Amino acid sequence: MRILLVNPNMTQGMTDTMAAIARRVAGSRAEIVPLTATRGFPYIASRAEAQIAGGITLEMIADHVDSVDAVVIAAFGDPGLAGARELFDLPVVGMAEAAVVTAAMMGERYSVVTFSPVMTRWYADCVADTGLGSRFTGVRAPAEHDVRLDSVAQDMRGDLIALANRAVREDGADVVILGGAPLAGLAPEISGEVPAIVVDPIEAAVAQAMMLASLNARFDGRASRPIPKPSAGLSPALSRVIAMEALQ
Amino acid sequence: MRILLVNPNMTQGMTDTMAAIARRVAGSRAEIVPLTATRGFPYIASRAEAQIAGGITLEMIADHVDSVDAVVIAAFGDPGLAGARELFDLPVVGMAEAAVVTAAMMGERYSVVTFSPVMTRWYADCVADTGLGSRFTGVRAPAEHDVRLDSVAQDMRGDLIALANRAVREDGADVVILGGAPLAGLAPEISGEVPAIVVDPIEAAVAQAMMLASLNARFDGRASRPIPKPSAGLSPALSRVIAMEALQ
Amino acid sequence: MRILLVNPNMTQGMTDTMAAIARRVAGSRAEIVPLTATRGFPYIASRAEAQIAGGITLEMIADHVDSVDAVVIAAFGDPGLAGARELFDLPVVGMAEAAVVTAAMMGERYSVVTFSPVMTRWYADCVADTGLGSRFTGVRAPAEHDVRLDSVAQDMRGDLIALANRAVREDGADVVILGGAPLAGLAPEISGEVPAIVVDPIEAAVAQAMMLASLNARFDGRASRPIPKPSAGLSPALSRVIAMEALQ
Amino acid sequence: MRILLVNPNMTQGMTDTMAAIARRVAGSRAEIVPLTATRGFPYIASRAEAQIAGGITLEMIADHVDSVDAVVIAAFGDPGLAGARELFDLPVVGMAEAAVVTAAMMGERYSVVTFSPVMTRWYADCVADTGLGSRFTGVRAPAEHDVRLDSVAQDMRGDLIALANRAVREDGADVVILGGAPLAGLAPEISGEVPAIVVDPIEAAVAQAMMLASLNARFDGRASRPIPKPSAGLSPALSRVIAMEALQ
Amino acid sequence: MRILLVNPNMTQGMTDTMAAIARRVAGSRAEIVPLTATRGFPYIASRAEAQIAGGITLEMIADHVDSVDAVVIAAFGDPGLAGARELFDLPVVGMAEAAVVTAAMMGERYSVVTFSPVMTRWYADCVADTGLGSRFTGVRAPAEHDVRLDSVAQDMRGDLIALANRAVREDGADVVILGGAPLAGLAPEISGEVPAIVVDPIEAAVAQAMMLASLNARFDGRASRPIPKPSAGLSPALSRVIAMEALQ
Amino acid sequence: MRILLVNPNMTQGMTDTMAAIARRVAGSRAEIVPLTATRGFPYIASRAEAQIAGGITLEMIADHVDSVDAVVIAAFGDPGLAGARELFDLPVVGMAEAAVVTAAMMGERYSVVTFSPVMTRWYADCVADTGLGSRFTGVRAPAEHDVRLDSVAQDMRGDLIALANRAVREDGADVVILGGAPLAGLAPEISGEVPAIVVDPIEAAVAQAMMLASLNARFDGRASRPIPKPSAGLSPALSRVIAMEALQ
Repeated sequence: MRILLVNPNMTQGMTDTMAAIARRVAGSRAEIVPLTATRGFPYIASRAEAQIAGGITLEMIADHVDSVDAVVIAAFGDPGLAGARELFDLPVVGMAEAAVVTAAMMGERYSVVTFSPVMTRWYADCVADTGLGSRFTGVRAPAEHDVRLDSVAQDMRGDLIALANRAVREDGADVVILGGAPLAGLAPEISGEVPAIVVDPIEAAVAQAMMLASLNARFDGRASRPIPKPSAGLSPALSRVIAMEALQ
Repeated sequence: MRILLVNPNMTQGMTDTMAAIARRVAGSRAEIVPLTATRGFPYIASRAEAQIAGGITLEMIADHVDSVDAVVIAAFGDPGLAGARELFDLPVVGMAEAAVVTAAMMGERYSVVTFSPVMTRWYADCVADTGLGSRFTGVRAPAEHDVRLDSVAQDMRGDLIALANRAVREDGADVVILGGAPLAGLAPEISGEVPAIVVDPIEAAVAQAMMLASLNARFDGRASRPIPKPSAGLSPALSRVIAMEALQ
Repeated sequence: MRILLVNPNMTQGMTDTMAAIARRVAGSRAEIVPLTATRGFPYIASRAEAQIAGGITLEMIADHVDSVDAVVIAAFGDPGLAGARELFDLPVVGMAEAAVVTAAMMGERYSVVTFSPVMTRWYADCVADTGLGSRFTGVRAPAEHDVRLDSVAQDMRGDLIALANRAVREDGADVVILGGAPLAGLAPEISGEVPAIVVDPIEAAVAQAMMLASLNARFDGRASRPIPKPSAGLSPALSRVIAMEALQ
Repeated sequence: MRILLVNPNMTQGMTDTMAAIARRVAGSRAEIVPLTATRGFPYIASRAEAQIAGGITLEMIADHVDSVDAVVIAAFGDPGLAGARELFDLPVVGMAEAAVVTAAMMGERYSVVTFSPVMTRWYADCVADTGLGSRFTGVRAPAEHDVRLDSVAQDMRGDLIALANRAVREDGADVVILGGAPLAGLAPEISGEVPAIVVDPIEAAVAQAMMLASLNARFDGRASRPIPKPSAGLSPALSRVIAMEALQ
Repeated sequence: MRILLVNPNMTQGMTDTMAAIARRVAGSRAEIVPLTATRGFPYIASRAEAQIAGGITLEMIADHVDSVDAVVIAAFGDPGLAGARELFDLPVVGMAEAAVVTAAMMGERYSVVTFSPVMTRWYADCVADTGLGSRFTGVRAPAEHDVRLDSVAQDMRGDLIALANRAVREDGADVVILGGAPLAGLAPEISGEVPAIVVDPIEAAVAQAMMLASLNARFDGRASRPIPKPSAGLSPALSRVIAMEALQ
Repeated sequence: MRILLVNPNMTQGMTDTMAAIARRVAGSRAEIVPLTATRGFPYIASRAEAQIAGGITLEMIADHVDSVDAVVIAAFGDPGLAGARELFDLPVVGMAEAAVVTAAMMGERYSVVTFSPVMTRWYADCVADTGLGSRFTGVRAPAEHDVRLDSVAQDMRGDLIALANRAVREDGADVVILGGAPLAGLAPEISGEVPAIVVDPIEAAVAQAMMLASLNARFDGRASRPIPKPSAGLSPALSRVIAMEALQ
């Protein structure tokens, strides 16, 4: 099984970290094919950026869709997810949505804890946009936002544990999602100090993508696939996907 | 006052029709600056297409934002609307959202009537995405979908009147929105034969944009504007907007 | 164009202030016809008062409906709005609803800031009653409620700015609505000190009423108009409106 | 115990029928004090009419509040209910709300069946306005609306039974509310022919009012009572209630 | 009239307290038949415990259903309520649901105040599970949870009054429900010190059960009754109820 | 990895069919440990039955929890799921919830198709009870309910395909869930004749359980675990789980 790990952000280090975690999750069951955006932004954190990066995501998927079994859009906010599901005949998983449904199967209420107040609103929007957030109890972040992205997980370890404990005690969370690529990998390290289940979104997304691929569901022939269309200015591969006759 | 009328679709005839209606609405109060997408799709009708066209919309607005007072995104589905509102310091109006709020101020319940069953799902999604659709009573469309876009408003006039009457009698609509650019201009023609208020979304959007511009609200300095960022592969103007220091 | 500005409160000074703002919004485009209730209450601030004042509002509109093009119900809470929309064949705009839809077209989340804690609950109810409040983030008011209505906007200027900043920083508001007639006119004065768009409800309501009137929609013949009925004890004009045959 | 049965409609026959049913429910436990509106409308069926009749209801209650233990507002739509609850220090029950909560305690889903399609929209609005309608499955009415109000319950008996059966079979109702004063008293007659629990709203409202009065809860001193105010043009008794100092 | 008061908890003292209050509510109108669970838990406070105790509740009701006119499930959380309503042909009332609907008929917003932070989450869940909690403003409890159940109502009297006042002032409650059997009977004692209506859930539940029984609605013949079935391992009486032919 | 497949129904054949499918999903990655209820009902189809069977489910899990890595509650309706999640320190998956979240990751809207109208209401309730059903478009079932459970999947194959097509065309489903154990295994057979993705709930549930187990999340130490308690009349193993000290 091959899983395409699309990082719609341009930061290669982020892709590397996530790919390493993905490979640990996949073990021998799947090959991880990581991809970093070559256009767009270093780190998506707004609707405007997600609008643009979502289009780039569709092009990245179109380039590799024929050689993989499932796709992970590896950014909270799931840029391009709904469009990718319409167009491509294979499972496409978003990081926010995968974290949300995984958390919802582990407990009744879940919170997001993240490393910077700058992300609070964006992450709350991301959860709301999944349409599945009825058991979500909010985002908690430190007041301080001057952080070094490559060391924030260790620099703020104590603060993050404290925030997770408040999410549990004050907000009633059974599950805490550690939001943001800089926190990837931290979940197992701190779970012993948090009285709740701790979820790493990239782990959840990769595991869900493999799970969906394993079901061998038939994706072609869907009536809800957009009607084939001409287009201009798109990458060749995406243009072909959009123009292609539906199979039904 | 200058109103930028951005058609995210590539069909010039659609722009021409909408610009004519916009000019009638504007009268001597505003100059309409119409713009047709040169990339993308002839006619957006899915989330995938709106994902891509929304990015193109942001570029089109960035190119002209300095010389206009408000923007109309002239496609049901409002591609790029949320992102445009974050980035640009002036009123940006979407056609679906403007139709929805205008209808909601005219009556308690409103429906959409359109010309093809192919659009039903897309239009329902568009209304839901405004987040203001709690009084929406659904989309009605004919069963037949083989239509000539340039004459469908006249060819199906009787069917559309019948559908609007069913929206009123069976769905309880007080207001009927005629959805879809090919129906632009039809509202005043048929309103005498529909026992409800009939709304043309392009009229509503242009009027709302002028209304918002007339309020002279201060848009710069918003805390919710995304943090300035570098980017790659965007049009020069959009790249500059995204990189610019916020004013607060 | 003539806009009827119905103040369902009995306080003439309030009408004068709002009429002055309305005239500035209208410029040469519309004549403002202000009207102050001669029965009812000095200042409506409860459901009981709005129940009674709403009936008075219907009578005030009925007296003038034939000579105007649109109506503004100039009190937060929109007393009589739903009934007025049923009965009268022209656009009727409520101040709370107009503020809500205008704010929703300017940003994603909006708050209300007001001058007294006594109004908090009432204003929250008013927004909820529009049925469009899904993006509303709450009311903020000072703890102190001993205010002089005619000078509160200046006396509490600093507090109001501070509250608006908290609405932005803590509640995530993109738009701040200054609620309450005593704050009419303050929005442009303080907008430079608030990192959000600031909306004056009376401005929004007058502008929306003019916008709706400009669309020339056909209001008669609506199936949802109540069936004509005899009545007793109503003002002659309202009694005639209610008894009149519907036109369809 | 004395229960004030306020009919906000002007039709005395309707009051007589409802008072008879109320007396049967009350037995020897309570005295029923029926009151018919002397202003307003023969039969309220719109928001405009309820706006006006609600104010009249407040005056009717104010005239008798000192000599009764609870109030029933005996019209579906509960005109004046929220305001009456604010002002008066005793239980006030609305017919729609009482029917809704009674039905919700008898089964999981409930429908309304009524005698004329003219009432469908109004009754659906009435249930929605209670804010407790999450288990409501809709209104069913005959197509025919030419009915004699004084005999419709018998004339349409077969149709009403058929509609109730469809509400059960097609809409999943466990409980059927017979809506509309002309159907008062029909519930026990037809319940054997309907595979669901059948509720008469006037029975439910009177029983709920007696139940609430029996609890001897303390209504004075409520913080949510509106601040005392002067008023003009109201009945003397209502004016005094509104001007009175709150007790807290 | 005979009312079965089923305490799904095993604590006899709790049953005795509630039965005494029930008898005061019932007066000469009804005989109270109290029953204490002989299996299960001393005090239900989780979904797991309610799952098990709900089954026990069904057996307790089945044993006595033929000799009573209505049933009260005397535990917040209403264990077994939905199932009991399906199976038994008489009114079944849950304590949480009865408190909720009673509060909703007394005011617009209601809160729960209880004696221990351990109960906060459970009580919030209980209200949400009624499906009628749209006007619920939350649970307030003291920080301290080391309490003596038999004296907590007096030991914490001051704290409970303070919490109720905060529920009114900060959360906007018109009605305060005193949650938890250890607080049964406290409502009338403290209502003079709380600026809101104070509700005792056991009073509300018994009064609602008597009210529903007084309506003489016909419960047999419901289409929504589960299809008769064989079973194994259930008490003989419950097994017979489940196997019985439905009457329709 | 060992997955406990708890069938809360007493029908062994149902367990055998589901275990066979589970083993195909698990392949060499997991051992399936099937368990059939020895008390309760042949086939759960109501809230009353789920109340009782949910308690039995907790006992079945408690007996085996120490030797497995995750649990599947193999009945639509997920009896006992919420309680099991509170009590047991490992992933517990319900069939309805797993089907819902799996469908939601494959498309935007999903429907359930089943074999008998008797199940319609129960399945709709089951989806609603997950709290994640905002994209659910309803249940479709044949009118006929006289079916042979062991052959219904083949007997009604054509009808089920037709119903699935209507769910797609009329209800807008992107994904169709085949609900009910008698349809287990049918999904891959008919997916070529349905223009949507077809999901088998037992496949989804087993795959989700394995996915969750693979994440190695830490379940002990949860603050939301119920406080340890004595109990009476429960199975020894369940009694010990409930009495056990929480680990935090």
